[in-house]
Amino acid sequence: MARTLAPHPDRLFPADPGVRELARRIYQEIREAPIISPHGHVDVATLADDEPFTDPATLFITPDHYVTRLLHAGGVPLDKLGVGRAALSEEDSRGVWRILCERWALFRGTPVRYWLESELAEIFGVTEQPDAANADAIYDTIAGCLRRPEFRPRALFRRFGIDVLATTDDPCDDLAAHRRLAGDPSWQGRVVPTFRPDRYLEPGRAGWRAAVDRLGEVTGIDTGDYAGYVRALEERRRYFHEHGAVSADHSHPDVRTDPLDPAQAARVYAAARAGTATEAEATAFRRHMLLEMARMSTEDGLVMTLHPGIRRGHHTPTSAAYGPDTGHDIPLRMEFTDALRPLLERFGTHPNLTLVLFTVDETTYSREIAPLAGFYPAVFIGAPWWFLDAPDAIRRFRGAVTETAGYGKLAGFVDDTRAFCSIPARHDMARRLDARVLAELVAEHRLDEDEAIETARDLVGAQPMRVFRL
Amino acid sequence: MARTLAPHPDRLFPADPGVRELARRIYQEIREAPIISPHGHVDVATLADDEPFTDPATLFITPDHYVTRLLHAGGVPLDKLGVGRAALSEEDSRGVWRILCERWALFRGTPVRYWLESELAEIFGVTEQPDAANADAIYDTIAGCLRRPEFRPRALFRRFGIDVLATTDDPCDDLAAHRRLAGDPSWQGRVVPTFRPDRYLEPGRAGWRAAVDRLGEVTGIDTGDYAGYVRALEERRRYFHEHGAVSADHSHPDVRTDPLDPAQAARVYAAARAGTATEAEATAFRRHMLLEMARMSTEDGLVMTLHPGIRRGHHTPTSAAYGPDTGHDIPLRMEFTDALRPLLERFGTHPNLTLVLFTVDETTYSREIAPLAGFYPAVFIGAPWWFLDAPDAIRRFRGAVTETAGYGKLAGFVDDTRAFCSIPARHDMARRLDARVLAELVAEHRLDEDEAIETARDLVGAQPMRVFRL
Amino acid sequence: MARTLAPHPDRLFPADPGVRELARRIYQEIREAPIISPHGHVDVATLADDEPFTDPATLFITPDHYVTRLLHAGGVPLDKLGVGRAALSEEDSRGVWRILCERWALFRGTPVRYWLESELAEIFGVTEQPDAANADAIYDTIAGCLRRPEFRPRALFRRFGIDVLATTDDPCDDLAAHRRLAGDPSWQGRVVPTFRPDRYLEPGRAGWRAAVDRLGEVTGIDTGDYAGYVRALEERRRYFHEHGAVSADHSHPDVRTDPLDPAQAARVYAAARAGTATEAEATAFRRHMLLEMARMSTEDGLVMTLHPGIRRGHHTPTSAAYGPDTGHDIPLRMEFTDALRPLLERFGTHPNLTLVLFTVDETTYSREIAPLAGFYPAVFIGAPWWFLDAPDAIRRFRGAVTETAGYGKLAGFVDDTRAFCSIPARHDMARRLDARVLAELVAEHRLDEDEAIETARDLVGAQPMRVFRL
Repeated sequence: MARTLAPHPDRLFPADPGVRELARRIYQEIREAPIISPHGHVDVATLADDEPFTDPATLFITPDHYVTRLLHAGGVPLDKLGVGRAALSEEDSRGVWRILCERWALFRGTPVRYWLESELAEIFGVTEQPDAANADAIYDTIAGCLRRPEFRPRALFRRFGIDVLATTDDPCDDLAAHRRLAGDPSWQGRVVPTFRPDRYLEPGRAGWRAAVDRLGEVTGIDTGDYAGYVRALEERRRYFHEHGAVSADHSHPDVRTDPLDPAQAARVYAAARAGTATEAEATAFRRHMLLEMARMSTEDGLVMTLHPGIRRGHHTPTSAAYGPDTGHDIPLRMEFTDALRPLLERFGTHPNLTLVLFTVDETTYSREIAPLAGFYPAVFIGAPWWFLDAPDAIRRFRGAVTETAGYGKLAGFVDDTRAFCSIPARHDMARRLDARVLAELVAEHRLDEDEAIETARDLVGAQPMRVFRL
Repeated sequence: MARTLAPHPDRLFPADPGVRELARRIYQEIREAPIISPHGHVDVATLADDEPFTDPATLFITPDHYVTRLLHAGGVPLDKLGVGRAALSEEDSRGVWRILCERWALFRGTPVRYWLESELAEIFGVTEQPDAANADAIYDTIAGCLRRPEFRPRALFRRFGIDVLATTDDPCDDLAAHRRLAGDPSWQGRVVPTFRPDRYLEPGRAGWRAAVDRLGEVTGIDTGDYAGYVRALEERRRYFHEHGAVSADHSHPDVRTDPLDPAQAARVYAAARAGTATEAEATAFRRHMLLEMARMSTEDGLVMTLHPGIRRGHHTPTSAAYGPDTGHDIPLRMEFTDALRPLLERFGTHPNLTLVLFTVDETTYSREIAPLAGFYPAVFIGAPWWFLDAPDAIRRFRGAVTETAGYGKLAGFVDDTRAFCSIPARHDMARRLDARVLAELVAEHRLDEDEAIETARDLVGAQPMRVFRL
Repeated sequence: MARTLAPHPDRLFPADPGVRELARRIYQEIREAPIISPHGHVDVATLADDEPFTDPATLFITPDHYVTRLLHAGGVPLDKLGVGRAALSEEDSRGVWRILCERWALFRGTPVRYWLESELAEIFGVTEQPDAANADAIYDTIAGCLRRPEFRPRALFRRFGIDVLATTDDPCDDLAAHRRLAGDPSWQGRVVPTFRPDRYLEPGRAGWRAAVDRLGEVTGIDTGDYAGYVRALEERRRYFHEHGAVSADHSHPDVRTDPLDPAQAARVYAAARAGTATEAEATAFRRHMLLEMARMSTEDGLVMTLHPGIRRGHHTPTSAAYGPDTGHDIPLRMEFTDALRPLLERFGTHPNLTLVLFTVDETTYSREIAPLAGFYPAVFIGAPWWFLDAPDAIRRFRGAVTETAGYGKLAGFVDDTRAFCSIPARHDMARRLDARVLAELVAEHRLDEDEAIETARDLVGAQPMRVFRL
């Protein structure tokens, strides 16, 4: 007998009946609000092309490192999950799907289970928890849906109630798919690109030289010297801004922002192009350029978001076999107070800078991020990120930052996902937890109920719109 | 329509009716207990002079960096809040007050909101939440109170039920105001100074040379060499002790206590006076002197309190324009285990040392502070400090330290405030949370109710009296 | 009037009546399950000899640094507790026992209090909380029990329902007591040794040279060079494995695993034997050898457990007077992500490696340990260790790791104790908290009740059996 799959209307609410009732009332006020998704990794082509999703494994498993890493940790090799392959045959897709269903217990207690449950039940009408016996039947249910027009990407986008969706894009991308989508008269949605220049700013990374050469080609600006390189970056930011981008996103191992003087910067840039820069010089240049990015943000108004502190590709053999983003990016200890000081000394009170800080090191919430956001008008606190985008972690986050920085310095929820169908489930989880945390404040007489409702509404609407300049 | 301001009698208690009832009963036993405030920043002149408080903005906003930093983070420049100005005209005070009332939502979820609510309602009889419409009326209510004798500092001191209040003082202060107050036959309260020698111990800090010269003048001991400098510090400690001081407080970026041998110390001291000490030498000297302070504490019995790990004046332009303590002191990651080892190897079991550790880095609670306090008889755990003196943070603190160190190693609550009127609200918050945490232990059958009550009483009375040698 | 001692059947369960009822039901399913104790410090001779325990102080206090450190922190010198002495006279034992009873309040809120209560009530039938007045009577009750056959070690082992108990042993130990116990036909239990080679792997530690000499003698392999040393370690691991060992345990200040090339390793080994290795070389060698231990684990199948990050013997005068394990081992900040990378690059997906990570630095739970266990099939998450084996800390642990790694990557509970009588109380505490945490997930509709029960059963049975290859 399969277990019933029926997401409970009160899920994630506190057990106490009085507080639960409060949480319900607050949630009621925000559950249907449109989704603002100002940072994520959905491919714009999905919406521009509006092709049907191919198969259940590709939709739910293979490209989503949240899912594949837990199966891998449970003993399933990545090749058995189709990772790194271009497309799956129906047989392969069924096989991958069956693995997920058989190992469903591995996901207990994780947000992945929560999101998948919501998606299966609420989007595809599945009514049983996946298991070995019903794997094929559920596969068929989903595959059947995917053939119908109302399960095409654009139809789902509308059904999900998405008001704004940001993608993440390479600075040299011509944004043709964005243009195509925006220019389609049958399309009403708002999908904006995001400028993500990491690999252009790290001379220590393989492929940097080729990247800055390409930057020169794309802009027609000679990137052979530092001045041209900076101008070319400014030009691409301008191009992105022109195409609707509202933010630039940065993900380096640390957030130091120590400046180089222009002559130093030019010298290191030349050395890096010649392949003679030391690792220390490459690092110094990367930090200097993060500061430059802030300077550019004050000029072009792109919101600056930081997603730092990850050791990418921790297991080299897996990277070699399957490429990046395959589940073994592991967090590092972070430091913001001294690292961001040069940037904040210069631009922390600049009226045109908005700096949103994300972290996977929870220790910085109360110690550094909330105190910085609690003074600098430019600094806002990003939603709990990656390993921390789960119910208990989100509640720890709230407890750790709001007492120091208040609710007004939160940037609102960010789903940050490449799993398109998980978007509504992720936002719904965040809204339920908003309602819960605020209900607890009301129950403890720390906030009035009408204020709690006002705050909840701001967090899903006005606040991210304002912070991300939407 | 303004929102009602009426602090709930059950605020901060848990929602569960049974646990709430337990919390009420425990709280009942301590709510009226006299306030012991063994560390804080109220100016003794306030009480010695007993002049009426001038105006609402100066009483509640301008000098309190807790309040100004949140308004600043919300976009209000500090000069609009009167920061850095000597006195405010009535018009200016009204203007500053209006800003607070208009931005009242910025404080949602913060302890500042909680304290201000308590102060407005319980001291000044305000019955409406501040907003743009009632700003002037509330201003008038408070200003009216301030003209009445029962709102003068000494009257409030009595009304607040303060038994002991410690100030924080410069070692060269002649403590004349303390003497004046203590010598006034109409005054019954106990206000004691605290020895705070940071700037005399950091040769790397601007003004150090002038400070040690002044130390020489005040003591009549030649501070031209290291031996004289040490004797002069001992002499000022003696002077403070004679004037009622019970503790010496220290706030450096770290708490390393590596000793220099006397010849090294003398050499670095001479170099520092000559302006030729390196930054590394200045740091080594500061660490050595922290160890010396512990040695002196074993001799003169002043309790040693450490408030370390803050990057002071993070935003240099703000420091330059408005001075220190203007809301941009930001916490640093801390290390206690190895840093305090030289001190504790020497004095950790010394019968005359009491060392109270405070931190703004929560990660050290369970990892370092509780284990140290859980072995060394000299070490006690200070109350959650600064950014952590809020309901959720205080509960995290309790959860992180008491399981390892028990209740007997807590130093009791410390308000650490420069906002005189917030003292009762801060102690009341701590008592409510004491009651709540203990009620939860009782509800989970981890402690008997009578033990919980005994523990609660100790925490607000006997324990701080004993730890701070009052 | 003494306080009643009567552990409540619902202790540690949440206060909310509905969730408590759920917790009760889940707990009911696991409370009687046999105890699996795959890591601890009980001396095998206790069971091999099966001599009666001598006296209450030696059973409960003197050798247990959990108990003595809290009394010491409360002002009782260690010599007053008999620490460091071979045996206690009855008078001394009574005196030590009396100290515990008089200072009973020091243990409020700690797990030591919880365990001692359970032990006194459930093993020895004590019905009053210890205090100054009843100290002698309780002493007599316990002493009376200890003279009876049903309180001998083997009888208690059976009564406690222990299925497997692992000891911790020196690699040169001949395991004679283990052999004697296993070979006794009247004995049915399973007690296995654990290979703990720390002092053979740290050339920087006093006594290393003598230790590796002894290793040569015991194995008959010349440890005069590196190759022989490695072979000798492999040989002892084989010997342990043959005698039932399932794991090798390692406790160094950090977990770096940077490899040396064989020639370097051989050179540093020779230098270390000659007493000429630098501190940096000794450290590099230790890190290299931790990697070697992982390599050996992939070959011989011993599970690798890491208990790192402790500053041992923080207070040198106490170490000198009373020896190791006397309550002043203090945690250090930890780093796993980069430190373990060389090991995990090589063996993280090796089918024959099981690596269980423990920590006393909670900050690594969500940041490093859960993400590592959430990708690498070899990595499992050890139970909350040492200062963190208490109710609130255990709940924090669960909240911090399961959302990222799921329940399938938990290694199950480990009591890690040298206090034999505390084993059932410690496991019972863990089971109550398992039930509570799972009940909360059910109450919040994040898990079905039948899944919660299945998970709870796995955590106390199948999971530790599988992870520890029992």
